[in-house]
Order: sequence, then C-alpha cells, then structure tokens
Amino acid sequence: RLVLKFGGTSVADLSRIERVARIVAAAAEDADGVAVVVSAMAGDTNRLLGLAEEAVRGPAVSSAGPGLDDAPTSRAARAETDTIAACGEQLSAGLLALTLQRMGLRARSWLGWQMPMATDGAYGAARIADLSAGALGPAIDSGEIAVIAGYQGVSPENRVATLGRGGSDTSAVAVAAALKAERCDIYTDVDGVYTTDPRVVPGARRLDRISYEEMLEMASLGAKVLQTRSVELAMAHAVPLRVLSSFEEPSRARQGTLVCDEGLILEKQIVSGVAFTRDEARVNLLALRDDPGVAAKIFSLMAKRDINVDMIVQSKSRQANAANMVFTLPHKDLPDAREALESARETLGYQEMTSETGLSKVSIIGVGMKSHTGVAEKMFQALADKGINIDVISTSEIKISVLISAEYTELAVRALHAAYGLGEAADS
Amino acid sequence: RLVLKFGGTSVADLSRIERVARIVAAAAEDADGVAVVVSAMAGDTNRLLGLAEEAVRGPAVSSAGPGLDDAPTSRAARAETDTIAACGEQLSAGLLALTLQRMGLRARSWLGWQMPMATDGAYGAARIADLSAGALGPAIDSGEIAVIAGYQGVSPENRVATLGRGGSDTSAVAVAAALKAERCDIYTDVDGVYTTDPRVVPGARRLDRISYEEMLEMASLGAKVLQTRSVELAMAHAVPLRVLSSFEEPSRARQGTLVCDEGLILEKQIVSGVAFTRDEARVNLLALRDDPGVAAKIFSLMAKRDINVDMIVQSKSRQANAANMVFTLPHKDLPDAREALESARETLGYQEMTSETGLSKVSIIGVGMKSHTGVAEKMFQALADKGINIDVISTSEIKISVLISAEYTELAVRALHAAYGLGEAADS
Repeated sequence: RLVLKFGGTSVADLSRIERVARIVAAAAEDADGVAVVVSAMAGDTNRLLGLAEEAVRGPAVSSAGPGLDDAPTSRAARAETDTIAACGEQLSAGLLALTLQRMGLRARSWLGWQMPMATDGAYGAARIADLSAGALGPAIDSGEIAVIAGYQGVSPENRVATLGRGGSDTSAVAVAAALKAERCDIYTDVDGVYTTDPRVVPGARRLDRISYEEMLEMASLGAKVLQTRSVELAMAHAVPLRVLSSFEEPSRARQGTLVCDEGLILEKQIVSGVAFTRDEARVNLLALRDDPGVAAKIFSLMAKRDINVDMIVQSKSRQANAANMVFTLPHKDLPDAREALESARETLGYQEMTSETGLSKVSIIGVGMKSHTGVAEKMFQALADKGINIDVISTSEIKISVLISAEYTELAVRALHAAYGLGEAADS
Repeated sequence: RLVLKFGGTSVADLSRIERVARIVAAAAEDADGVAVVVSAMAGDTNRLLGLAEEAVRGPAVSSAGPGLDDAPTSRAARAETDTIAACGEQLSAGLLALTLQRMGLRARSWLGWQMPMATDGAYGAARIADLSAGALGPAIDSGEIAVIAGYQGVSPENRVATLGRGGSDTSAVAVAAALKAERCDIYTDVDGVYTTDPRVVPGARRLDRISYEEMLEMASLGAKVLQTRSVELAMAHAVPLRVLSSFEEPSRARQGTLVCDEGLILEKQIVSGVAFTRDEARVNLLALRDDPGVAAKIFSLMAKRDINVDMIVQSKSRQANAANMVFTLPHKDLPDAREALESARETLGYQEMTSETGLSKVSIIGVGMKSHTGVAEKMFQALADKGINIDVISTSEIKISVLISAEYTELAVRALHAAYGLGEAADS
C-alpha cells in the first residue's frame, strides 16, 4: 500500500491535475493499493479564508482591517471558517477523482467525515484523535483509488474541523500510518530536501536520505519543504516519507529525498545540512532577579501571546543575586513581547530591557554530530575566517545554531556549506 | 417555527448576505425558532459544475465540447460532481452563519450529512428519502439559528448527493415539513407571484394568495418563481409557502404571495393568472394505425429521450382504421423527436409526419373554473376578437391552454389578462 500526497501548486489547475492523475495511475500499477491525499488548488484556501474573514469583520471594517494573521477567534466562528475552508480540498479531490475515472481507473473521493478522519474540537488547528483507516481499507483493497481531501477531519460534534495551515501533509502521514502503508510520497514543487537553500548556495545538493530528527530540525529552522507536525507523526509511526516533485519528468522526479529512521541511513553525514531563518530579534533582560521560576514566568508570558521563543541564554549578572537573560524571537513578535515584559516589570524585577533586530539564525544539522567531536569548532572557525561575529550560540544533540547579523546570512551559509563539504563536488 | 429560504441572487456577495442576515435577525425576533436554507452564491454552482464537466471531458475535448446539458453520465462521475457542486452551499451557509454571529446572534451552519438530509442514491437528481428533523429540532429549540446548506443531502452510501437544479427550494420545504414549521418563506428576486409576467403586461398584479394546484400549473407553464417539485412537496405536507423579495425594503417585501391550501383562500378567483411558454413545436402524425397501444409506444419513445410531450390531440382520420395525432414539445427537442419517430415508422405505421415551429402556449389558470361555466368561451372570444387563431386546445380541471402562433403571444396574454379583469384596476 502506498500513500501519495500532492500540494496546492501540484493541483493548481485542471492541466496540473491531469499530470497528477498520470503519476497516480503509474503508482497504481506498481502498488497493491493506493490512497492519494490532495491539498486545495493553489490560492483557493486563501480565497475562502479571505471571504470568511470578511464575513467575520463586516463590511465597514474589512477594507481597513489587519491581515489574515488576526483570524476569527470565537470557537463558533472558527468552526464556520473550517466548514468554509474545507471546500477547497473537497473540490480538488472531486476533480482528481473525475480525472482518474476518465483515464479508466476506479477512483472516488473521500471527505474528512466520510473516512472518518476523527479529530478533536480545536477548530482551525485540530489534532487527529483516531488513526484508524475506517472504510478506507476495504475500498483500497478492492482496487479502487482513494482520493482523500487533505487538511480536514470531523470533530466530536460531527462538524468539519481543519488541521490548520499545511495540514494536508499531516493528513497524508496519518492515512499512511492508518493503512500501514509502505511509504508516503509527498509530491511538491521541489524535488527533494537540499543541503541548504539552492537560491543561496547554487551548489546545494539534494539529499538521498535524511533522518526524521534532522528533517525536524531543518523544518523548524526554516526549510519549508515539510510541515513539522507531519514529520513528528511520521517518526512516531515509523512511516517513511519521500519528498519529490510533481513537476519534473517522472524519471528524474522518482528520486526525491527519503525521510526515514536514522537506522536506515547507512552513510551518516556528520553534517547533513545548513538551515537559516531571517528576521530574528533578540531581547535582553539585564539584572533580572535570580529567583527560581522567574524564567518560567517570562516564557509563560510569551506562550500566552503565542510568541515562539527560541535561543535562550542565561548568565550571571555582575550584581549579586541577579542574572542576565537573552532570548530570540521572530521580529514581527517583538513589539508584542516588549509590551508584555514591560507590563510585568514589577513581577519579574529586571533592571533594564534592551532589544535588537536585523538578526539571522544559521544552523548546521546532522545526526553524526552525536558521535563526532570538533564539529562546533569547525563551525566557529569557518565563521571567524569570514569575519562574522557570533552573537548567541545554542545547541542540541544534532544541531548547532548561531545568531549573527542579518547582512552576513548568505556569506555564513555559503561558508558553512563549503566547510562541511556539502556541495555537489562532494559527490563526485 | 419558521423556515426562510434565500436563492442565489439573494446571497450573491457579502453585502447581500449582510442584508439577508438582517432579514433573518428580524424573523428570529418574532418566531419561536428559525431555520434558514441557502442556495449557492449566484454563479458559484455554474463555476463548480463547469470545472467538473471539464475534468470529465478532458483537456482536448473541453474547448470544442457541447454545453452543460450533456452532463457526466456514469454514476461514479455524478457522485463526484455532486461532491464538487455541494461546495457552493457549504460556502454560502458558512458565510451567513458568520455574519449572523457577528450581529450577536447564535447561529451555525448545517450541511446535508450533518442533519442528516437523507436522500436516495440518484446522484445529480436525488430524492429526499427521509423527512425527519434529526439534530435540527433540538438546536433550533435552544434558540440557535440553523443555517442549512440547500440542494444537498447524504446518500445511503454516505456520500454527498444533490437534489438537482433549483433543489434548494425543495430542501427548504422538506426542512419546514420536518420541523412542522408554521410557514416556509421563499425569498427570491421577485416580490411574489403575479397574475402574469409583468414584463409583458405592465399592469400585472401581485397575488396575495394562490393555491398549490394553481401554483403548480403556473410553475410548469413557465412562471419560474418556484420549482415544481418544491410546490408538490409543500402541498403533500400542507406547508404554506410565501414567495417574497429579499431586495425590497422590509415593509413592502413582507407582503409577498402565500401559496397555500385552496381552503384557505376565501375569495376564489375564477381565473388567477395567465401563463405562457414560447418556443413550442408541434408534431403531426397523419393516418396513424389506429391500434390500441400505438399512442403509448409514441410517448414511451419520447420519454426514453427525456422529451417532455405536452398537449396531445388525437382525431379520427378520413382513412379507415386510422387516426391523426398531434402533440407539442419544446422546440429544442424537435430534431431528436423527429429522428426517433422516423426510425420507428414501421412499428407505428403512420403515413406522413409533419411538424411546425414558432408556436407559443398560452394558458389561463384558476381553481374557480371547477365550479364556473363559460370560462373557456370567454377565452376563445377574447382571442377571436384580436384575430388570433387557435391551433390546439388542451384543458385540465383548473387550466385551459391554447397553442397559437408565437408572434401573437404578447397580444394574447394582454387580451386574456384584461378579459378576466386581472389587472391593477380590478383592485381599486
């Protein structure tokens, strides 16, 4: 059994759906049973969410109102927004099923409530509650291709619930886990996972294999190939993922990158890739009261405002019983974060708050780091050679991240890519 | 309990949905429970069906292919087309629910499968199988406004099934019957049922009340206010329908026309209205073998090709054991009908077939006819006074239809409208 997933650009119009149908037809010849998960046609979800948002705001406000970020917040409104947004995948699934039928294949669409894909009731960001294949298994076993509307499920209240942005990847992995599929192929507009962004390093190389853990770090650090959640789910259920392009000619596209268990990767790279995110900001709290729990208070303040805090460094202050704390966050969240920290100044008891923007985070990732020494040293040396100052350092078992001035981003990425021999030349 | 239904032009965009929401809000203040049934935003259903059709035909054929009439025929394709088409009402229902919520009302959308609106498995033209209110009753009783996606139900296979074109009227009546609603208000782009088409007779008068039977004759004879099927369903379940406009100012719009049981109409008009259809054609079969069953054969031939045969007149031929038969049908179906009759010439054994186009059918309708004489005489006299030749006559208990040359259509309609005193003047 095989699960194929196609993103919004792959099904953007009927001629692309035609191309997808040919890929599915070829896969159906080889596999013992095929399920296809589709996203909405590119642009459709935005159009539907835009309409919903306008209905929520009303005619007077909508023209001047803020963007999509400030989505409807009442639970009732989120449920309706999900009902509306789910139309996108309902349409693309129906169109792909019709196209497959025209090619002479047996195919039918499956909506979230039909399988069912049971979720919790967190409309707009629902989590999958039950990973059973439902009616899907027998249908696939009968030789019918299942075309599944991604992104959507059904809540305990028997209403449409969506998994949130990019949720179709998660749908696909969940279906693959439920069907105990051999593999889940994620077709997208790139032909795999690269050692770094090829727009920054033209010599970036497509990886044949990458471990779940590395992929998670890559995804959360800015490589937008796969949704973090879908990789977590794949790792938890040991579903191998293959990332490949629906635009390349089949011969080339069939390659892609396999995201799998570390054990299946024979030649482990010490460093597999270089990831980066721009638009980072840094907050410094000076002479913070050195009480147990003060750090927890700060980060719960941030969490309440949905601010994703990243690199955190705490150091002793020169003052007695005081510490300095530094952390990074996305630039756009800085005003919000400053306001929250300002209003909690009494409770937190810090002396001064400063902040800085125009920063980037650059990271090297690799499972091989666990067993190799000198990896960090090489990184720092490579950056020093280019005269790049490191602002903050944070590490995990399989990655090292540094915060640097944004203007050095490309330089740093290229230097690290070369230092660890990640380019095409390494292959030959 | 009250059911309101809004057509596609009434919910064509967000500002019109806003207006609809105000009408619903006003109704909710007066009623003990309100359900609203909506059509898709005007144009949406056509767009979705167009996409489905293109997927069925494929890229090579679609540009040169015939129009929407030749819809997908395989059952599997019709099921997918229904899944696609149902998105239209899913969207409009969600948007209206959001708008009502913004006005501070409790509202939620209901899709066909959620109520459920159980249908049979005739995708594309499904019939409602079960008229129970399901979860709707308790929701409405709790004071929540139910916003129901019209046109759609759920088949025995747990898939989306649509009721066919104009099916939202039928959805509304079915919901009203299930909820035992006091009335079903059908909001549309006209403010009621008129004695005849106001574009032909400027003095046409809006009827305060009309019986189901009369409305059925009006509807099937060309007054496109209500779908025939919805009137039949309303009659069967004694649900009073009110036709009114969502565009007029509330004060005026609140009037409309009540379609109800004959017994509720105190002042019965002998003639309530004049209806007409253009583009009629006539087929004449001369010297047909006068066997029992020949007529049945002819009409089964027509039925097989989905040709709606109307006025039928049979007369003795001058030849022994032979009859002449005349019937009318829509102009567009004439080539098809001629071909069918030509190929069955042997079986039917007629001597000659002729046909004529450029005809119109004009009818007078009224329950009062049942108990009054001289109604037909007045009609024929009025037409004769204008020098209009009557080609074919057909009658039922509550209507008289004549076939005339199309060029006299307006003249005939105006003459009859005046002869039975149907104009505004009759009111004052």
